[in-house]
Parts: sequence; structure tokens; C-alpha cells
Amino acid sequence: MKLISQSDEIKECISVGGRELFRKETCRMMAGPCAVESREQILLTAEKLADMGIKIFRAGAFKPRTNPYAFQGSHSEGLKWLEEVRNTYGMKIITETSDITNFDEVADVTDIIQIGAKAMYDHSVLEAAGKSKKPVLLKRHFGATVEEMFKMADYMLLQGNRQIMFCERGIRTFENSSRFTLDLCGAEVIKQKTRAPLILDPSHAMGYSFGVPDIAMACTAFGCGGIMIEVHHNPEEALCDKEQALSLEQFKILFENMKEIGKAIGKVVE
Amino acid sequence: MKLISQSDEIKECISVGGRELFRKETCRMMAGPCAVESREQILLTAEKLADMGIKIFRAGAFKPRTNPYAFQGSHSEGLKWLEEVRNTYGMKIITETSDITNFDEVADVTDIIQIGAKAMYDHSVLEAAGKSKKPVLLKRHFGATVEEMFKMADYMLLQGNRQIMFCERGIRTFENSSRFTLDLCGAEVIKQKTRAPLILDPSHAMGYSFGVPDIAMACTAFGCGGIMIEVHHNPEEALCDKEQALSLEQFKILFENMKEIGKAIGKVVE
Amino acid sequence: MKLISQSDEIKECISVGGRELFRKETCRMMAGPCAVESREQILLTAEKLADMGIKIFRAGAFKPRTNPYAFQGSHSEGLKWLEEVRNTYGMKIITETSDITNFDEVADVTDIIQIGAKAMYDHSVLEAAGKSKKPVLLKRHFGATVEEMFKMADYMLLQGNRQIMFCERGIRTFENSSRFTLDLCGAEVIKQKTRAPLILDPSHAMGYSFGVPDIAMACTAFGCGGIMIEVHHNPEEALCDKEQALSLEQFKILFENMKEIGKAIGKVVE
Amino acid sequence: MKLISQSDEIKECISVGGRELFRKETCRMMAGPCAVESREQILLTAEKLADMGIKIFRAGAFKPRTNPYAFQGSHSEGLKWLEEVRNTYGMKIITETSDITNFDEVADVTDIIQIGAKAMYDHSVLEAAGKSKKPVLLKRHFGATVEEMFKMADYMLLQGNRQIMFCERGIRTFENSSRFTLDLCGAEVIKQKTRAPLILDPSHAMGYSFGVPDIAMACTAFGCGGIMIEVHHNPEEALCDKEQALSLEQFKILFENMKEIGKAIGKVVE
Repeated sequence: MKLISQSDEIKECISVGGRELFRKETCRMMAGPCAVESREQILLTAEKLADMGIKIFRAGAFKPRTNPYAFQGSHSEGLKWLEEVRNTYGMKIITETSDITNFDEVADVTDIIQIGAKAMYDHSVLEAAGKSKKPVLLKRHFGATVEEMFKMADYMLLQGNRQIMFCERGIRTFENSSRFTLDLCGAEVIKQKTRAPLILDPSHAMGYSFGVPDIAMACTAFGCGGIMIEVHHNPEEALCDKEQALSLEQFKILFENMKEIGKAIGKVVE
Repeated sequence: MKLISQSDEIKECISVGGRELFRKETCRMMAGPCAVESREQILLTAEKLADMGIKIFRAGAFKPRTNPYAFQGSHSEGLKWLEEVRNTYGMKIITETSDITNFDEVADVTDIIQIGAKAMYDHSVLEAAGKSKKPVLLKRHFGATVEEMFKMADYMLLQGNRQIMFCERGIRTFENSSRFTLDLCGAEVIKQKTRAPLILDPSHAMGYSFGVPDIAMACTAFGCGGIMIEVHHNPEEALCDKEQALSLEQFKILFENMKEIGKAIGKVVE
Repeated sequence: MKLISQSDEIKECISVGGRELFRKETCRMMAGPCAVESREQILLTAEKLADMGIKIFRAGAFKPRTNPYAFQGSHSEGLKWLEEVRNTYGMKIITETSDITNFDEVADVTDIIQIGAKAMYDHSVLEAAGKSKKPVLLKRHFGATVEEMFKMADYMLLQGNRQIMFCERGIRTFENSSRFTLDLCGAEVIKQKTRAPLILDPSHAMGYSFGVPDIAMACTAFGCGGIMIEVHHNPEEALCDKEQALSLEQFKILFENMKEIGKAIGKVVE
Repeated sequence: MKLISQSDEIKECISVGGRELFRKETCRMMAGPCAVESREQILLTAEKLADMGIKIFRAGAFKPRTNPYAFQGSHSEGLKWLEEVRNTYGMKIITETSDITNFDEVADVTDIIQIGAKAMYDHSVLEAAGKSKKPVLLKRHFGATVEEMFKMADYMLLQGNRQIMFCERGIRTFENSSRFTLDLCGAEVIKQKTRAPLILDPSHAMGYSFGVPDIAMACTAFGCGGIMIEVHHNPEEALCDKEQALSLEQFKILFENMKEIGKAIGKVVE
């Protein structure tokens, strides 16, 4: 059985809000904090990132945490601040739907629908995303094989959405000195088996900011359609995943270095 | 931080439809096919299992499959046949909710709400199950640590539901001669850290019927509050997970053997 | 390619020192401390275990540890004390060779040559064990598939030794609340694919004594040719793996309980 | 307890045959076939690689295979051909010792002693390597944590050898579309915790040649002290691991591309 996700029907280039932001020649940077915490935080971070040339802003308004006693997101209010980012700085927004109860609300606001790792097997979300006209970034569950991710993507493709991107964000292994294990070998299989853009997420894979720059550099040279990096204006105060966030200053240096890698491999990092 | 799932607030004994079916001295058998396929299949299987003395019938009406081209369940119609099983044979029903879109429908019919492995991280389902008055069987995701399962259970406990059971059904490891790896060591940690009943699922762990009897025997001697076994009147024709289903004849022998183990350890297998 | 380890050439029953100690109808208990620490410790423990009816005494004289600053064994002296155990109490000895440098010394003394998990891939040890006339217990490496273990066994079988036993002692997975994960699903595959006795090692799998009795009970009911348990006369003072050792009192109770399981499944636990 | 492998006593720069081939500013390429198959193969490959500027030639004379029916190496004769490579082309040699029985023979010939993944836990090999005056490349076992690798290295360091390099070559995970999973997150921990050079091995991690160039590019940008690549003059005829070998032509292109990455990050790839 040939999956649609492995066929020519899936798109190679992805248009976001009318602009072809994901193309073969580009490694598209998506940056921002893990969670939408406050209007001030979001606008401040977005302004700085826009100044650096970042075109896609990432931040989660709905944060379904494993720890029930942790911050769970700013929800509808957070989505409004993300709209403000788009209106003020002209950035496109990628934000996460955690399940079908917040799907419509998220899909109304976001430019790219992000389906988080834990929702990768959620048929209702996939069906809704499949019916949406917006591009989707599907994150690989940390316990899922590459083949399973392709199968879950077919639930969207069967609904007519051809703009799907696959994100490798680390799998769970016995090594626990890092939070997860970025699976570049599996990512290579994604590159071989589907035309859809491959997105890599060094922040969630490593889980600790000290490793993010090296891994982001590796991802750039590896060759991919985009990279997501968590950036916080004050990592020590972050309400979510603070150990893995880069500061704005760290990110700025990294971004410049990644552009150099891009030049070396004939790709624009932007 | 002490989790409620590890405290005395979680119930040791579980009442199902007014009867205390899960108690310290009992290893409760739950048997039935993977999927509700047809009225005939369900009534036939239930009759035979009721004859053997089985009190809890398991079968899924909603089958969220990884393969988008496989049978996905009989849905609302299937739930009606499960009600017919209860009315006709007096068995209690355990059936799965795959996400919030079918939660109410499932919860209305079932005696025990089963939250499948892939829904273990689904906050909407957990919240709804927490608000329900029915006992819940929470299956450990194949990529989840024991600690994470406890944390997700707290989402239900925070909503007031104290009747929660934990099910180990196999984790994903590098060994692929079986479908999953039953984690008895992790199950031991569950036994140590929570008072709630531990349920084991040899069928999904092994994935092949040849191994189910030995593993079910092991689970009985290990000591647990209940065991789920997939039984099909004609495994070769099963629409879902046919490789792991026992025939009625195989199950009958196994059930008798498990009772002998029960006697050896001072527990009633029923 | 058909492996010899999966053929009729491998022995079903194993003779140890002239006695058929491993037979279809028996679940053979092997007990003793992790390490040979002193003459007093060994003789005291052996006496107590002999009194309980244990026929095979286990203890390691060569303890190749991962931690270079931990106790590494009593070496040649320890082997002498093991001989004393045999002469004094009539028990058979199983002890480990860690690599070819101590192979001959160990093989001269021991009744069963134990090849530890970390030596499973050691061709020199396998070749020497293959040339030996003594039965061999091959432990599965914690990172090895079942299929790989069979292949490594063929290195011995090709040298003419037909008395080989396979031991599952836990594999490495993402779950780290236990030291390893006992793989009963993989053990089932071993039972299906080879006639050679399957040995299970709950102590190394769990790594914590609190879980050893339940898992040992499970292993007995699962059906296997033998079980290894670590027992120490004073676990808190053990020089090696003290967290997983049972006390003599705990073991005595467990052994009696395992015999009851044996009766329930028609096997003699001895 | 502070390990020596994490202290200042371990060397940052490694001298091979009198030349400082591993330094902070260099990403050292090691290339050659998996196995020494014949004199012709070795000399032909070495000549071509020397022409490209490769300074360290890799090939195994002792190939301890998991499959007992596969080619096991050319042994002593193969070592002679490796000496011929050094004498003819002035390249340095890195070749593997599989256990203590071939340690001296290998150590006499090689410039860098390679301890293969399966020998990482072999105390005799580690002790011998520790007593040797030659630099050692210690490969991480596919089932070993980073921390365990550091501990095993201390066995060498305790014997006085300070010239040790650590090699990440893929760990075993549930994903089996590639042979192993290159663990860049773990590699980052190696970089953080030890001064010793980090070596990466994309060929063994991926196991399929199609993925080797992308991963090798990633490794270069990640920042490491060296990279090992398997190259065969005729991959389809390779006697060992033929699926992962690059052809000479493929390698030549890759090497040039890696140099460009090196320039982008201020390192010399040579």
C-alpha cells in the first residue's frame, strides 16, 4: 500500500498566508518562546526576533503539560496576543492545537497549525486539520516510528489538505543525560520517503540550552526545510521548559552562524 | 510534590455498576474481542465468555487505528450491541474512548471507561473522565514512563474521580520480535507507588497469540488486580489485531490454568 | 539460514556434573550472592541455601564492573571458596567468566560456565566455551536482540558444545524506575525458537529487591527451565549490587511460594 | 566521584605517530573500508584516499561479526597490508582490536587503537590499551549510556594513557528504518563533560549509504574532533556492511562539501 504522504500528491513547497515560505532552497527559521505567557513577553520577544529578520513566530497558547501542577497556557487571551504580533510585526504565526476542543480557536488565528507530538495519534485533530485550508506541521511523537507518522499524516491527506510538514523533535531512548534523542537517521528516512518539508526541533530534543546551538548548526548542514528554536527574553523566568530556551542574545549569534552554514550548502537560512 | 495518584485518596477497591469487582483478593479477568465488529460476533462471544464465568466484557467500538486504511470500528451501533451484552448476559462492559468527540457516547454506555494508550496524554479526555462518576482504566502509553502515567492520572483525580486503575500494556523497545515489551519491572513500581489496582494486558504487549497464555500466567502469579485478554470466536477473521487474539477454546483452557495459579497465591481469578 | 541454536542439535536437557539438572519438568533454582566476597560469606550462604534444598550455587569471583572504583571480585581465591562449597555441601557451581583471560581458570572450577551479558559478543570467550565440555549459560546483552543472542550461541555450537542455556536478564529501555526491563515477550520468542532451556534472572532485571519476589513468581508461572536469584546473608553490606539482593529469610519464603506455583503448572521448582 | 575522563588529566590534543593530528581547530577525517579484504582492495582504496588528502586510513583486520556465517576478517595478513599502506602512502592507520587475543598484534601495527563498540565493556582490552603508549579511540556501545563510556575510559586512564578519544556511532532504539540512531544529544553531553576529542561515525549509525552524506555534513557543523566514514572502491562487492559504504566518488564529493562547512564554522576539515 502506497501512502499519500509518500506520493507526489503531498506538496513540496508550502505557502503561508499567501507567501511561499517553505521552498527547496530555504531553511526556514521559526523562533519564539515555548509558551505565550503575557502580552508584554510576546510583543517584546516578537519585536526583537522581527528585527533579526525572523518571519515565523512560534509560541504555544495551549500548553498541555505532563505535570498537572505546572502552567497550562494563556489560552484564548494568548491567541489574541499572537494576532497582535502578526498585525504589528508582519510575522506569520505557528501555534499548537493540543486537541479538538481548542482546534477551531487555534486554526482561526494561526498561519500554520502545529500538531504537537502528544497529539500525533489524535484522529479528531488530524481530521480537522485535514479539512482546514492551512498548512500543518505534524510533530513526530517521541514513541512513534517514522512509518507511523506517515500513516497518521494520511488521515489529513485523505481530507484534502496537501500542505503538510513533518517535524522530528526527539525520540525517547535509554539515554537520559538529554531530555530526548534527536533522530537524524530517522529524519534522513523522512527526507528519502516524502517530498514534504522536514522540520527539525533541536530545543525539544536536547532539552537543555547548552546543546541547542551545536545541534541547530548540525540540523542546518544536514539539510532541512526549517528549524524551530525556543527563545525567551529571560530564560530563567520562563514558565515552560525554561532549561531549553536560548536567550535573545544567544539566538542572534546562532542565527548568524546558521546563515553561514546555509551559504556553505547553497541554502538560504532565513 | 506528592501526587494524588500516589496518595491514600485514590481507591484501592473499585465498584463497577454497584458491585465491588476489583478487590485486593481478586484478579479480575476482562475478556472479549479487540473490536466490536458485528452484532452476531459480539453476542456469540459474550455468551460463551459468560458461560465460562467472565464478568467483564471488553471490546472497542471506536478503534482509532494507526493505519488509515484499516477498519476503524462500528461506533454508535457497536455501543448498542455492547448494551445488549449487558442486558442479555449481565456482564459489565469496558470499552474505549479514543478522544473527546466520542467520550460522552462511550461513557453513557460503558461501566468502566477505558482510556487507550494513545489517549493517555489527552487532557480533554482526562478531564471529562475525571468529572465522570464511572471507574476509569488508564492505559500507559507505550512511550510513557510510569511517573508520567501517574501525573496524567492526577488530571482525573483533581476533578474528583477516585476510581482509577492503571494498565501496563507493553512499551516500545528495540526488540521487535514481539509487538511491544511487557514491562513487569515498571508494573512493580506501579504496585509500590499507588494503591490503585494494577491491570495487565498480555495481548497488546506480545502482539502474537502464541505468547499470550504464558504471559497471562506470569501476570497472574506476579499479582495484579486484573488482566485483559483478547478473545475472538474466529481469530483468523478478526478485523483488528487478529494475530494476538486467542480463540474461545484457547482462552477457556488458559482461564482454568490461571485459576490454579490464583489458588497457589491465595487470590481468586474470576 | 537456519541457526544451529534453533535446530534439534541443541540440547533440551542439560547434565551438570553427571546429573540431569535441567529437564522439561523442572524449574531449576540457582541462588547465591552477586559476588564472592569472603570465605565466611560464601560458606555461610551456601550452607543456608543447601539446607533449603538449593542444588546450584551462584556467585561471581570475577566481577567486571562498569564503575572502575568499585569492588572487582575476589578472583582466584574466590574460585577456591566456590570449590569448597561444592566439596562441603554437594552443590553445583555456576560462576561467570568475564573474558578470555580468566576463562580457563573459571572453566576448571565451575560446573556451568556463565557468560555474562557484557561478554555476549565476545568471540574468544564463545569459542573457548564452545570447545569446553561443560554446559554454558549465555546471558543476553541488555542491548541485544533475541536473534543476535542466537547468532552468538552458534559460535559455541559450531565448536561442538550442545549444552547451552539462554538467560534473559533485562534489556535497557527508556523506563528508568527499574534498572532494566525484564523482557518476557522476548523470552517467549526464545521459548518458541529454541529447545534449549530458558533461564530468567529477576534480580538483575529489576535491580531492586522489593520487586524480585513478584517477578520471580511471574517467571515461574511463565514457564522456564530455571531462575537465578541473588541472595545475600546481609544485603546492606553486600559489596556488589546490594540493592537487588534478597536476604536469606526473604528468599526462603519466596522459594516456598515458587514451589506452589510450580505445583499449579505441573513443574517441580527445585 | 570525579572521573578522570572528565578531568583536566585527559588530553585535548592527540598526537599520532609524532604528529598532532587531533586539535581543537581541526575536524579530522578518517576514511576507508569496513574490512581489510585483500591487498589489492586496501592499496587501491588507500591510494585514492591519500590522493584526496586523507591522512588517517581506517579498516578492520579483525571483524568480530554477529553473524557467525559471515566474513570474519583477514587477521594477521590484513595487518601487514595496513602496514604497507602506511609505508607506501604515509597515512596513519586506525584499526580495531576486538578482544585481548588480538590486542598486541593490532597495537603493534596501528597508530590509533580502535576499541569497537562491542568491546567497550571489555576490561582486559581496556587495561591493555591503558598500558599502551598509543592513542585510543573508544567507541560507545550501542546499549551504553554516555556516563558508562566515561567510566570504562577510566580503566584506561588509571593505567596511565591520557590520549583517549570518544566515538558516538549510534545507539539502539525502537526506530528500525535505520540500523542505529546517531545520538547527537548524547554527543553534546560528551562535548560538555570531557576535553577529549569527540569522534562521530555516521556510517555505522545510519547503516545505509544514502543517509551518510547528510549526516556527515551535520556532524561537521555540529563541531567535533573527527569523523569516520566507510568508503569502498566497489560497495556492492564489499564483504562487510556493504549497504553503508560510500563509493570513492561519493566520498570525494562529500569531503569537499564538508570542507566548506568547516570554513563556515572556522575549522579545518582534513
